[in-house]
Amino acid sequence: MPYRAPISDYRFLFDHVVDFKTVTDTDRFAEATPDMVDAILTEAGKMCEEILAPLQRPGDLNPARLENGVVRTSPGFAEGHKAIAEGGWVAIAADPEYGGMGLPMTVTTAVNEMMSAACLSLQLNPLMTQGQIEALEHHASDAIKQTYLPKLISGAWAGTMNLTEPQAGSDVGALRTKAEPNNDGSYSITGQKIYISWGDNDFTENVCHLVLARLPDGVPGTKGISLFLVPKYLPKEDGTPGVANDLRVVSLEHKMGLHGSPTAVMEYAGAKGWLVGGEHDGMKCMFTMMNNARLGVGGQGIGVAEGAYQHALAYAMDRKQGRTSVEDGTGTIVDHADVRRMLATMKAEVFAARAIALANAVAIDMATATGDADWAARAALLTPVTKAFGTDTGIAVADLGVQVHGGMGFIEETGAAQYCRDVRVTAIYEGTNGIQSMDLVARKMMDGGEAAFDLLDEIETFAEAAKSELPDLAEPVWQAAETLRETVEWLVAQKDLTDRFAGSVPFLKGFARVLGGYYHLRAAMADTGGARARLARFYISRLLPEHRGLFAHARAGSGDLFALSPEDLAA
Amino acid sequence: MPYRAPISDYRFLFDHVVDFKTVTDTDRFAEATPDMVDAILTEAGKMCEEILAPLQRPGDLNPARLENGVVRTSPGFAEGHKAIAEGGWVAIAADPEYGGMGLPMTVTTAVNEMMSAACLSLQLNPLMTQGQIEALEHHASDAIKQTYLPKLISGAWAGTMNLTEPQAGSDVGALRTKAEPNNDGSYSITGQKIYISWGDNDFTENVCHLVLARLPDGVPGTKGISLFLVPKYLPKEDGTPGVANDLRVVSLEHKMGLHGSPTAVMEYAGAKGWLVGGEHDGMKCMFTMMNNARLGVGGQGIGVAEGAYQHALAYAMDRKQGRTSVEDGTGTIVDHADVRRMLATMKAEVFAARAIALANAVAIDMATATGDADWAARAALLTPVTKAFGTDTGIAVADLGVQVHGGMGFIEETGAAQYCRDVRVTAIYEGTNGIQSMDLVARKMMDGGEAAFDLLDEIETFAEAAKSELPDLAEPVWQAAETLRETVEWLVAQKDLTDRFAGSVPFLKGFARVLGGYYHLRAAMADTGGARARLARFYISRLLPEHRGLFAHARAGSGDLFALSPEDLAA
Repeated sequence: MPYRAPISDYRFLFDHVVDFKTVTDTDRFAEATPDMVDAILTEAGKMCEEILAPLQRPGDLNPARLENGVVRTSPGFAEGHKAIAEGGWVAIAADPEYGGMGLPMTVTTAVNEMMSAACLSLQLNPLMTQGQIEALEHHASDAIKQTYLPKLISGAWAGTMNLTEPQAGSDVGALRTKAEPNNDGSYSITGQKIYISWGDNDFTENVCHLVLARLPDGVPGTKGISLFLVPKYLPKEDGTPGVANDLRVVSLEHKMGLHGSPTAVMEYAGAKGWLVGGEHDGMKCMFTMMNNARLGVGGQGIGVAEGAYQHALAYAMDRKQGRTSVEDGTGTIVDHADVRRMLATMKAEVFAARAIALANAVAIDMATATGDADWAARAALLTPVTKAFGTDTGIAVADLGVQVHGGMGFIEETGAAQYCRDVRVTAIYEGTNGIQSMDLVARKMMDGGEAAFDLLDEIETFAEAAKSELPDLAEPVWQAAETLRETVEWLVAQKDLTDRFAGSVPFLKGFARVLGGYYHLRAAMADTGGARARLARFYISRLLPEHRGLFAHARAGSGDLFALSPEDLAA
Repeated sequence: MPYRAPISDYRFLFDHVVDFKTVTDTDRFAEATPDMVDAILTEAGKMCEEILAPLQRPGDLNPARLENGVVRTSPGFAEGHKAIAEGGWVAIAADPEYGGMGLPMTVTTAVNEMMSAACLSLQLNPLMTQGQIEALEHHASDAIKQTYLPKLISGAWAGTMNLTEPQAGSDVGALRTKAEPNNDGSYSITGQKIYISWGDNDFTENVCHLVLARLPDGVPGTKGISLFLVPKYLPKEDGTPGVANDLRVVSLEHKMGLHGSPTAVMEYAGAKGWLVGGEHDGMKCMFTMMNNARLGVGGQGIGVAEGAYQHALAYAMDRKQGRTSVEDGTGTIVDHADVRRMLATMKAEVFAARAIALANAVAIDMATATGDADWAARAALLTPVTKAFGTDTGIAVADLGVQVHGGMGFIEETGAAQYCRDVRVTAIYEGTNGIQSMDLVARKMMDGGEAAFDLLDEIETFAEAAKSELPDLAEPVWQAAETLRETVEWLVAQKDLTDRFAGSVPFLKGFARVLGGYYHLRAAMADTGGARARLARFYISRLLPEHRGLFAHARAGSGDLFALSPEDLAA
């Protein structure tokens, strides 16, 4: 499965679609000059192509396994992780004070996406570590920062996130893991956590777990939860790993895909940990980490979509079958209308999802650089869209990739099926896509829709201005934005959140459709008469119209839904 | 994975939605009284629940394998097949003269669907045999019929279909397998065939292959292809299996799913075969068989969708998580709006797809019973819709089933993921869903759209009459039918088929959406104020509106599509 890093796509998006220059114009990110960013992307892309992509299939065929309590990772993963660590790619956005490069999240997003495309199973490891670094940077004591951050940033140690328990999945507040204070400022953590991605490995010197647990005086629900850092090996005075902590991997899951990534059941038996953030402030700390992790997971979906697209396109350009639209008989299946349609859909969707993710990252960077609340609101609004639409796109595009391959798509050796199996979990973990949609229509619209309306103003202003040059593209985008505006107005008017939730998933999909139309239009305006305008035309005439059905669904309310009783469903 | 045969759903559909009485009112099918059909469905359902469903997971965990040239099937599959054969379920529609029951295809469709829901891998075996029986009934000599049909119908022998070769997939006409006449009326078959479902097994006494091959004077392309029956063991004078034929299983594929079904590469090294149908008439004979096989594969998708739905509903009714709409705290996740939406979508889609398949089967039965060309045209029109929408529904509903399970959905032990992996191939084999859509807009509209307009007249007449009783359901169905009518008019006006093919997949999906709306409306009219009317309301207000975006896509033509060159796609 060869993979070619789509550097020129990032460059085009940075320059013409998501206005990355706004970011590099700030003092905070002034060092991220175009030359530097180019060098970063090129170097990261090279590693992904040459070192990570060849690990994709061995990881699937040789799942991580548990041997006498020790996790044995897939062949080549240790070397792959070493390359990521040595290249400095674990956490390029991290604070330079602790060894990071302080680069914008926008650049991180592109690098994470490339690593995901090349080998999703392995990329999940540094992605988890990035989340931990972010949480520690914001909430940990200086002592913890000094001990842990340099190790995590260099990739010498890895980080995990421990939220879920058997009875506490989407409802994190139901967790039972306990934390009891010791007399040395540390805590004893006791409980079981499940679905812990990269819960252990055999290639980093230490594995550091961020664990949500309840202090003895923690109230029930989310408000009584605190966050603890619990290392596999307790650091010695000199900062090197010392004695083993009282925690272990109980078992690894047998999963539909992502076999190279060990998903652990973890047992904490009075393990020693340290508080991160204030007592009972665990959820707040987790949200810091989760917002960026959600952007990262969206990027995983986009990366897999890109990989699956390249894989299917290569097959379609090579495979001869039947009489095609090419009259001299040299055509391949790419010359069949329906195959061309599938490939164009894949490429158009990757573009849309990537533009949304990068616009999201730009908003995060601007919020970081300026402290501006509007940028923060924009970032918060886009995060669930990036996560859900990015991962939905990964699933849909990988599925189309299988279909382009015909019978070969169902045969594992081809590699198309692995993309499907691997990416499926991204719509589930880090908050299911249903949870993302609820976040979008509830929490992210507590402002009465202000952040959404600001974005819609931007879209409509741009579309209005584009009408003279590309009327047949600009007009439908403007219209779609209007329909989205009416739908947001309807949503914020629903005081009973259930009425919003009853159509929140189609709403999020429709929102993404409109955003995709906007970013395609921007691309078309920067390349009128070129390939990007042709792709925009395909998207706007064929995929954008889906927003109407989706918004009709979004505005149906909960009446007819709850009229269907569980008994009706079981009838 | 317990499975409950949905007998009452079939009964309701037979009586109130697809007008099965029209079939049993014919002389040909007068014996299929309501009591008899009830007994058949109940008995078949019992076998599916008790014997086949428990084989689903063992088949996945223990794939069929090739040992020294012999196929070893999954544990329990031999016993499962024996139960199918002894119950007479291999081919209940087959000719009573050879041991069949001569039952309507409508009843067969329901029985096949139940077997698919219980264990898709195993059900594919009798489905292939059914196709072979059909082909032999229509095209074979009396001698062949007398030797083979009783064995195939009883399940003592199994049948396969051999079309595909490495260079000849969707383009069957490119096949290279040769047939040379022997001097005894038989032929020597030489060539390699791939993707042969159930190419061999270790539980039937013989395996009979229907093989497409080219005679020495066969012209290139599909017009030079003939059909041959090539048994694994040559029948002796007394009809029992004799010496082994010159054919073998070269290898079995490693597939994404359907592990219990051995997918073989077959090698014919001068194997002895007999012509079925006329010389060079192979494609015509295959089409007889394929039309019903396509209905059968659509039914596979629907069966898996039903299985995945029941599985997800059981989980959702049991799993507690978070605060729900049930105020006393007894709610499970079925009481969350988004989970309820997913389950309602699954149920509404299963209903729509099942109604389309059964209406298709009714048309086949009426064509058989009356010889009426309009019924035959109706059957031909609906077949690609049943196949593509049935399998798309299988894939979409199984995917929702995973999502309902949350993190558990990605864990193989749960069983939700297996439905996804197993059903994926149904959109590919027996003609990819892209091929189905091309069949729909080209071959099935060579009548200038007449069969489609007849169906639309039926829909609009019914919707018109329903407006007084259920205006909010009938009006949108009528409107959607009008939009479909305009789209068919547009399609048949396109002389360049490429303009039809450029949107044929979205057209087929939109067509199915409208048909689904119609059958839901019929259900609602038969159960006003009941659960089926509530489900219809859900479908019509939330899913039916998708047709607008789909038809916009369907009518986009090929201009913008082919403007996107292969170089654009690779850019």
